[in-house]
Amino acid sequence: MYQGGYMGKVLRINLTDQTSKEEGLPLAVAKDFIGGAGFGIKYLFDEVKGGIDPLGPENKLIFASGPLSGTNVPCSSRMAVTAKSPLTGAVGMALSGGYFPTELKFAGYDAMIVEGKAKNPTYVWIKNGEVKFRSAKKVWGMKTTDTQQIIKNELNDQNIRMVCIGPAGENQIKIASIINEWRAVGRKGLGAVMGSKNLKAIAVRGTEKIAVADKDKLKAARGEFTKAMKESHVLYPAFSKMGTPMLVDHTCAMGIFPTKNFSATGEYDPSDKIGTEVQGTRNVGKEHCYGCPVGCSQLKLAKTGPYAGILTEGPEFETMFAYGGVTGVENIDAIIAADRLADELGLDTISSGVTIAFAMELYEKGVLSKEDTGGLELNFGNDKAMVAIVQQMAYREGIGDLLADGTKAAAEKIGKDSENYAMHVKGLELPAYDVRGAKAHGLNYATSFTGADHCRGYAFQEIFGIPFPQEVDRLAVEGKGKLTKWNQDVRTACADAPTMCSFILDMAVPHMATQNTAALLEAVTGLEFTPEEIQEAGERINNLARAFNAREGFTRADDTLPERLLTEPLKGGASKGHFISKDELNQMLDEYYAERGWDVTTGAPTREKLTELGLEYVADQLS
Amino acid sequence: MYQGGYMGKVLRINLTDQTSKEEGLPLAVAKDFIGGAGFGIKYLFDEVKGGIDPLGPENKLIFASGPLSGTNVPCSSRMAVTAKSPLTGAVGMALSGGYFPTELKFAGYDAMIVEGKAKNPTYVWIKNGEVKFRSAKKVWGMKTTDTQQIIKNELNDQNIRMVCIGPAGENQIKIASIINEWRAVGRKGLGAVMGSKNLKAIAVRGTEKIAVADKDKLKAARGEFTKAMKESHVLYPAFSKMGTPMLVDHTCAMGIFPTKNFSATGEYDPSDKIGTEVQGTRNVGKEHCYGCPVGCSQLKLAKTGPYAGILTEGPEFETMFAYGGVTGVENIDAIIAADRLADELGLDTISSGVTIAFAMELYEKGVLSKEDTGGLELNFGNDKAMVAIVQQMAYREGIGDLLADGTKAAAEKIGKDSENYAMHVKGLELPAYDVRGAKAHGLNYATSFTGADHCRGYAFQEIFGIPFPQEVDRLAVEGKGKLTKWNQDVRTACADAPTMCSFILDMAVPHMATQNTAALLEAVTGLEFTPEEIQEAGERINNLARAFNAREGFTRADDTLPERLLTEPLKGGASKGHFISKDELNQMLDEYYAERGWDVTTGAPTREKLTELGLEYVADQLS
Repeated sequence: MYQGGYMGKVLRINLTDQTSKEEGLPLAVAKDFIGGAGFGIKYLFDEVKGGIDPLGPENKLIFASGPLSGTNVPCSSRMAVTAKSPLTGAVGMALSGGYFPTELKFAGYDAMIVEGKAKNPTYVWIKNGEVKFRSAKKVWGMKTTDTQQIIKNELNDQNIRMVCIGPAGENQIKIASIINEWRAVGRKGLGAVMGSKNLKAIAVRGTEKIAVADKDKLKAARGEFTKAMKESHVLYPAFSKMGTPMLVDHTCAMGIFPTKNFSATGEYDPSDKIGTEVQGTRNVGKEHCYGCPVGCSQLKLAKTGPYAGILTEGPEFETMFAYGGVTGVENIDAIIAADRLADELGLDTISSGVTIAFAMELYEKGVLSKEDTGGLELNFGNDKAMVAIVQQMAYREGIGDLLADGTKAAAEKIGKDSENYAMHVKGLELPAYDVRGAKAHGLNYATSFTGADHCRGYAFQEIFGIPFPQEVDRLAVEGKGKLTKWNQDVRTACADAPTMCSFILDMAVPHMATQNTAALLEAVTGLEFTPEEIQEAGERINNLARAFNAREGFTRADDTLPERLLTEPLKGGASKGHFISKDELNQMLDEYYAERGWDVTTGAPTREKLTELGLEYVADQLS
Repeated sequence: MYQGGYMGKVLRINLTDQTSKEEGLPLAVAKDFIGGAGFGIKYLFDEVKGGIDPLGPENKLIFASGPLSGTNVPCSSRMAVTAKSPLTGAVGMALSGGYFPTELKFAGYDAMIVEGKAKNPTYVWIKNGEVKFRSAKKVWGMKTTDTQQIIKNELNDQNIRMVCIGPAGENQIKIASIINEWRAVGRKGLGAVMGSKNLKAIAVRGTEKIAVADKDKLKAARGEFTKAMKESHVLYPAFSKMGTPMLVDHTCAMGIFPTKNFSATGEYDPSDKIGTEVQGTRNVGKEHCYGCPVGCSQLKLAKTGPYAGILTEGPEFETMFAYGGVTGVENIDAIIAADRLADELGLDTISSGVTIAFAMELYEKGVLSKEDTGGLELNFGNDKAMVAIVQQMAYREGIGDLLADGTKAAAEKIGKDSENYAMHVKGLELPAYDVRGAKAHGLNYATSFTGADHCRGYAFQEIFGIPFPQEVDRLAVEGKGKLTKWNQDVRTACADAPTMCSFILDMAVPHMATQNTAALLEAVTGLEFTPEEIQEAGERINNLARAFNAREGFTRADDTLPERLLTEPLKGGASKGHFISKDELNQMLDEYYAERGWDVTTGAPTREKLTELGLEYVADQLS
């Protein structure tokens, strides 16, 4: 049924009765959904009914790498993890790189569907197609690095690759992450889903080779791709050396690096405290994902005070924002320490940082008292309090109990007008980029099927000035609906599904994204793909995800932004005076829905659009 | 020249000019010094001149496993590390288990002699006889777990075994340890020696098989040995389940668990806070050294407050004492956290804990002020202050600067009568066991060639009531000179040199120690050994070590105990009223020197004794 060894097998793991089985992947799925996020969303929509409890046994957790993972195509060792998000109630899909995605392929699987709930703490051990369920009693409660080491020791194999959760996932805090080595499937609380299933880890070891349909074609396509990588003015010259944190300076200069819970963006600029120059004093080396010649991952070592000697891979730009700018913390070593701690405890740096910043603002406003904080002086900039609360969140202790499930839940508990300071969309905390100065980026936050997510339809045109598919004015509103659709569809089709690193997409191949993806996929899979089909697959996946959310009750009303961004102009910096008014947002939304062919009132995909994309059966479920 | 493959090779590593060479090990050395500590002390005496700076390039660092390491003899994966100690100025020799000792054998070497000083931070990479010098710039400053992981990644081999130092060793604090995985070459500041040489780590990978001279003989000898292990009433039934920390209850019941800097031993009994029952609530599993069926190493996971989620292998009994009893800290989770932190920073738990306890007593007495402590309330029992100071010591920050080189150096800086509260012998901090209630154990502390060291001539007769070679009264003085010689020689000959786990010696084969060692060594090496020769080798090694110290200027006057133990009777508990008076100490010393055949005035080995042991050349250097 399959050509070129593409889409070998899906492994279905049932934790309730501790069984597993292999399934073939229908060719139509392989062709229409490509892999990664495509597979995850397809299986999620088809197999998880509307309205289920995301932390109940009915939820499913789908791990899927892409058709390119494990081949010699660089930057393809990525995977999507998909479930219904306990944080948002919407599609929860997040990606991670590292070595696990290819190891899963080498073990024989394109995807893994984890179902049910184990009676006791369990980990799954997969070796070249052999699946074992093992007690995780020994490692339950352990941090993620220790968990991985102790399981390697227990299985007597130091070459195992693993995904696991830390105490945050075990305690089902809704901003818990999944960790593989030091990389995170960070957002949307997927770690809590693992925890709810009593699943501590999945350990994988594989030695199978990945078949390639047409080696000559692949050589040619790969050649084009790596040539574009080398020609990028950013990728090797800057990004390889500094990684994502180089964006601190860049976004500060643009006046869109969010600070102090978005209350002081532009006005307060911490780039001299946590920007490139200071980062450089902590850089000690780098790490690579499997098969990546770039190695954007920067190792940083804290140097001072109680943080001295703490190493982290990162902190990525988003964490510089989450534990830096948005909390007002200026101590680079505290940011490094908090980043490592969050990875060890298994919680999302973005959501935890933004939630702490939210609490800081409420503390400064007198809404939260020193009694509420357990004696912590929770002003902006208090690094020790921040690090303490990261720990407390994972255990729901002290004020961590109030904050553990993110800003939306905390605001509901606190009441009063606290929701006005809760920086989230659909329950997902805002990432970096103050979108008052980058409006397509803002429209993406408002409309992304995962909530406020910089990883879905990243508006690199606005952030980097890259003129593909066209030049844009970041402060303009017109055309942003169309652009956001393009960004979301292309990102899904060319990065999240195949699965390719999105940084490469943005920095090296924005001008040839769909062509490049089509060529690589054809060579590896033997299936035929046109660039148009690739882009349509992206649209299909976005529509299916949107349909999932519609089935869960999400409407146009949920496609919004926090009140602050809609009403408060930026007070300083290069984007001073700008904001996204409610009218502007509505204007962008109208255009966006029109471009998408969605109902402009409900924001739901229309039967026509779904049918056009081959998703008639989906339309039936929405009516 | 060698029979049975025994004593293959010594690797000499010169850091100054980044060269290495292989040398054969003279048969006479193999026969007379057995291995491990024997080799270390032999090479140290012969190659390191008197009076050198222990932290200068003239010092050498000798890693030696034993002839049994890497064979199927259980509990033999150990190694001795030997250098001139920067903490004591005497022989610095300490042992560690784990996997590194056998890996070194598998890589082709019985011993490694590290000389000189690298110009820049360096690590050495040894793979099956191939030696490379690599820049350690990337890992310099890292904690020990991270160091090992990052080097494995860099060398692209997850099966590497390693010794390394943490920030404490880099900063040459005189109580720095050497770490391999989670096991420590803990005492005498050998980590500082590595640091002084700019040597961050030695990574080893080997796949050679260890030859055995007579497999049938080995089968028989091994059978006798494992039978004795199984017959032990303690080894599997208790020690395997609880490990060394089971001694907290035991020594508390004897009234010899030292508390509050030895000021409250017996009187204050924390066994309900940190004893077996509470330990059990934190136990999550165990780890084994290579080839060990016992697995005494207990994994403990902290559960509460800021310490929650911190895992440690241990804390061993000595650390329960050092971060518990002697500091008065009753929070088991803080002890776990401090233990892990010390391993990560690479500093000795015993010396750091006792030094912090010393500072606590001085703080309570008003000798140290809150200004001296940088604002810490340094009362006995303050767990947060303890953990903070462990960190500060590694970096010589705050009060850590005063304490980083141990009690003796701190007392010299503080002056006044602070030396009276400095619990050390020859500069090495006292381990657990308040020897006012175990007098041979005390005599060993006074006379051991490494300073106050429970690992040299452990008086298991007093601590466990084991009647070999004879029954003893732990509070008596007579006969303790003879007993201590036996304990020191047999421990050296049957554990530290061959190299075998000393716990097995004490708990399973005290009645057949020299016979067992002789039989195993004969079978593996093909050399002939009588039990008497084994014991004499122990004596020889102790004499050579003593000669090293004599050459450094140590005399009988240094064979003493802290003032408190000689003048203050125990105030409570099962050993209440007892102490070792100066007369008693002198009486024991006289007997000890007489038994040893040493000069009763100087405490130095006589020419006659040295000649008898085949060490005439040593006598020449002492005269």
